[in-house]
Amino acid sequence: MSSRDRVLRRVRDALGEARGGAPDVPRGYRRRLPPDEAEGRADVVALFTERVADHRATVRHVGADELATSVAAALWGREAKQIIVPSDLPFGWLAELDGVRALADTPGTDLELLREVDGVVTGCAVAIARTGTVVLDCGRAQGRRALTLVPGYHLCVVHADQIVGTVPEALARLDPSRPLTWISGPPATTAIEMVRVRGVHGPRALEVLVVED
Amino acid sequence: MSSRDRVLRRVRDALGEARGGAPDVPRGYRRRLPPDEAEGRADVVALFTERVADHRATVRHVGADELATSVAAALWGREAKQIIVPSDLPFGWLAELDGVRALADTPGTDLELLREVDGVVTGCAVAIARTGTVVLDCGRAQGRRALTLVPGYHLCVVHADQIVGTVPEALARLDPSRPLTWISGPPATTAIEMVRVRGVHGPRALEVLVVED
Repeated sequence: MSSRDRVLRRVRDALGEARGGAPDVPRGYRRRLPPDEAEGRADVVALFTERVADHRATVRHVGADELATSVAAALWGREAKQIIVPSDLPFGWLAELDGVRALADTPGTDLELLREVDGVVTGCAVAIARTGTVVLDCGRAQGRRALTLVPGYHLCVVHADQIVGTVPEALARLDPSRPLTWISGPPATTAIEMVRVRGVHGPRALEVLVVED
Repeated sequence: MSSRDRVLRRVRDALGEARGGAPDVPRGYRRRLPPDEAEGRADVVALFTERVADHRATVRHVGADELATSVAAALWGREAKQIIVPSDLPFGWLAELDGVRALADTPGTDLELLREVDGVVTGCAVAIARTGTVVLDCGRAQGRRALTLVPGYHLCVVHADQIVGTVPEALARLDPSRPLTWISGPPATTAIEMVRVRGVHGPRALEVLVVED
């Protein structure tokens, strides 16, 4: 018997018989919002709005026919002159952009340009009410990850039917093999002395337009 | 026996035994282009280009990274000032439109406006090499039917992988329950004395940009 075996035997003896097997962990996670949190679709959307606002992001509700003017108004409000968008963003979202120049991102876009623009407009893959989170998966109208992580302002369009109640519901809609970006308000860090500081990196401002179709 | 039965029996007697059953129709339709027409993908694309040109439509090949400038150049070439597009057209296709105002079509767009604009830009669902046909199914980047039937100029973006050899191949990719528009060159009519006349209705000019991805 080696020294290693002797030491391990002493440890096992000290732990006794009862240590065997993994403890029984309850796996009955809550997968949907309980009725006291959200009874119907309207409550889910309202909870999302409330939680996004808790993250100090701006959130507005707009009708489908007002989306283009709302996008333009949000950009005018920030005096944006030049923005960048994924090249497959629906043209209709930007149809009213008088005075704001929109650039289409391409694989060759210089990262320096992403720092210089006044913002980025994207859609999302899914949004989560309970956590006030928007999830991007680099799919349609979302672009590559750098596009939403570098510019200082991110205007995100969320269709009401993209909002689910809980994280498990969101995961069920997502493909785990895609590059996912989970955004719960503008980035913050507690790296220094556990004090929460916002605006250290990434978009300093997040604005969400919820489109009621 | 009624008069009807008597007449029918005489007809059957006159036709004799051999008339029974439907004639045997060969159903072995050719579903793909034979090798002498197209050996590979490049031949299919080349045949499509040739046949579209036969229909007196303009056709150009562009790289994916030149699409925005090619769309702009086509519109500048026609001195277009104002165009209309489906609201879900990818923004990147129009990213270089200096001096041309693009409007996004909505369900409420006045039909009169469709007559006034200088053209429409769309994608397509599938394209057919043998017949030089572009098929739209009102899906993504294609808009409703009026959008491509009313304006006088239609610029259609066809990705090379949307081109198939034959009509049966195209049908296999299409959903017959969708509203389909089959475009083989600018519309023509032979309604008056069987003389083929172009430009009586619909887009007087069709231009196709084949994008080699």
